[in-house]
Amino acid sequence: MSSPGGGTRFALVAGTTETAGRAGISAAGADPELMSVTPAADAELVTYGTPVRTDVTPVSPSGCPTPALVTRAAREVLGFDVTVVDGGLAEKTGAPTVSVGARPGKDIAEQDPVSTAHGAFAAARQFGQSLPADELYLGETIPGGTTTALGVLRALGEDGMVSSSLPENPTAQKSEVVAEGLQASSLEPGDAANEPKRAVRRMGDPVLATLAGLTAGAVESDTAVTLAGGSQCVAVAALVRHGGYEGPLGLATTSYVADDESADVRASVDRLDLDLTVTDPGFDRSDHVAMERFVAGEAKEGVGMGGALALADRAGIPMAEVRDRFAAIYDDLIGDAPTATAEERT
Amino acid sequence: MSSPGGGTRFALVAGTTETAGRAGISAAGADPELMSVTPAADAELVTYGTPVRTDVTPVSPSGCPTPALVTRAAREVLGFDVTVVDGGLAEKTGAPTVSVGARPGKDIAEQDPVSTAHGAFAAARQFGQSLPADELYLGETIPGGTTTALGVLRALGEDGMVSSSLPENPTAQKSEVVAEGLQASSLEPGDAANEPKRAVRRMGDPVLATLAGLTAGAVESDTAVTLAGGSQCVAVAALVRHGGYEGPLGLATTSYVADDESADVRASVDRLDLDLTVTDPGFDRSDHVAMERFVAGEAKEGVGMGGALALADRAGIPMAEVRDRFAAIYDDLIGDAPTATAEERT
Repeated sequence: MSSPGGGTRFALVAGTTETAGRAGISAAGADPELMSVTPAADAELVTYGTPVRTDVTPVSPSGCPTPALVTRAAREVLGFDVTVVDGGLAEKTGAPTVSVGARPGKDIAEQDPVSTAHGAFAAARQFGQSLPADELYLGETIPGGTTTALGVLRALGEDGMVSSSLPENPTAQKSEVVAEGLQASSLEPGDAANEPKRAVRRMGDPVLATLAGLTAGAVESDTAVTLAGGSQCVAVAALVRHGGYEGPLGLATTSYVADDESADVRASVDRLDLDLTVTDPGFDRSDHVAMERFVAGEAKEGVGMGGALALADRAGIPMAEVRDRFAAIYDDLIGDAPTATAEERT
Repeated sequence: MSSPGGGTRFALVAGTTETAGRAGISAAGADPELMSVTPAADAELVTYGTPVRTDVTPVSPSGCPTPALVTRAAREVLGFDVTVVDGGLAEKTGAPTVSVGARPGKDIAEQDPVSTAHGAFAAARQFGQSLPADELYLGETIPGGTTTALGVLRALGEDGMVSSSLPENPTAQKSEVVAEGLQASSLEPGDAANEPKRAVRRMGDPVLATLAGLTAGAVESDTAVTLAGGSQCVAVAALVRHGGYEGPLGLATTSYVADDESADVRASVDRLDLDLTVTDPGFDRSDHVAMERFVAGEAKEGVGMGGALALADRAGIPMAEVRDRFAAIYDDLIGDAPTATAEERT
């Protein structure tokens, strides 16, 4: 429990973009239909430790469990407050959410994919200003989000490739989708430099708009912000920097993202002047099936996993304890048949 | 933090009815305009310990602080989870909320004051079934709610008068409003016996519909339910009993409600076969200004206060500790000028 005005607060922004419906873009769900449920389920898993309304524990097509279970494990061990913000959910969630007026994003090849971006940014900014916390960790869950993150980076004129929830990063496909999007919005790369709201409305998604607003508002009221995630959080940082904020800004991510050679997150971190924290959950030291797919390069990050691990690490909690809790949650929810939940629904 | 499937969860249903706009009906706000903000502010106070979006700490016209501060005090001392459910909020809240489709209720003298009652009942029931908890404490915040509670009791054919947030219970006025409501809905007292959804839709408010649904769903999944409040919770119990549930059901309220001679809550408790817990916060043993108006008979209950006190008491926490925390929160938010917040806004 937080005390007013104090402590660490973890906020999770959960939403959707139809960009995820393109085959091969994301691993955040067993199939495209289930992907629209993933953020609603992730919010429930972090909040309650179990699905409530969604009745599903998201897994990738190969059975990699959602990073929400890792964030929940860290939360159970450490005990931090979570506030879920609706960044454009497409399905009902049983997790309590704060509304900032975000609606599901359309495919970025449409002309105005995030029509609620400006309103969500403004409402999130106001909320970020008034949310009581000494420091704020901000995570995201949105399937397809690395592609819209790339779209935002290109619109702003930022270099660098984004990471992926798939072991083989479909960089060519992502670049193609982004090129389509730029054309649909009549934008050249860099045309939206210093215009973050334009960039996120034309080429981004509602989660990025909401996260950028929360960050902008929080730093205005002297709340320290750590973006908890990978490429999408880099895009948020870019949006905030292009909005003129030059002060301290943290990025806490996993070793899987930091070591991903298909992306170059470290280079982006340098360019955007972010305080980087990398945490290795040590999943390779376990032979538990829950961790196998992470070690194979899937998921990598998401649902604030990197930030949750960093908080646990900072508190002196051994990663072995987080791993044990993660394994127990996995066994409880998914058991030995990791794709069962998805199969039951099809 | 709760573990999945276990522990005690406190759910607060926050909403509005235009019935509160009638002069003299409620003390849950410094003036009728501010009353529509009260539930949104109460939700923030219980969640964060401070107003966030609403920028107001509700006080009665005479300066009695909202019982939300007492519930928050008990929560800070004890540390229980809170889930806020939107039972028809009229203003934006910064507290995360679960949606069940409830919309603000109209004055019960209108013909269909709670058009969302059936949908909210059904969605809340489903949510109550799946919400992980061993036991659920259910509180409410809705100005004007005792009048709609009386409306529901009369529609169901239940006897008994409701309590009041005012020191002098305006029982004649409430009965008049209810008579108007019955006429507008072409109902005689008792016409909606065994038809709880009809009763709450025609004569109640969206918070009662939501609470009845949550209760019905929770007991269906073997979660023990304690209604945390006074007359409104009696009306919820009546709705659930008229829906056919005959199993155990608790009511935890304050000594102020239990001792209110203008109402007869104990008689209703007997008729409805409820397990009654009465907790005296001992405010008369303090001379702090925050407690003065409670001792004078104002507020009495609300925002789950009676349930929060019962939980603290059960855990062996001395009431003096809850009082000290309440006083500290009051001093922090309102200081020595209890009506300042309200005055600033007018």
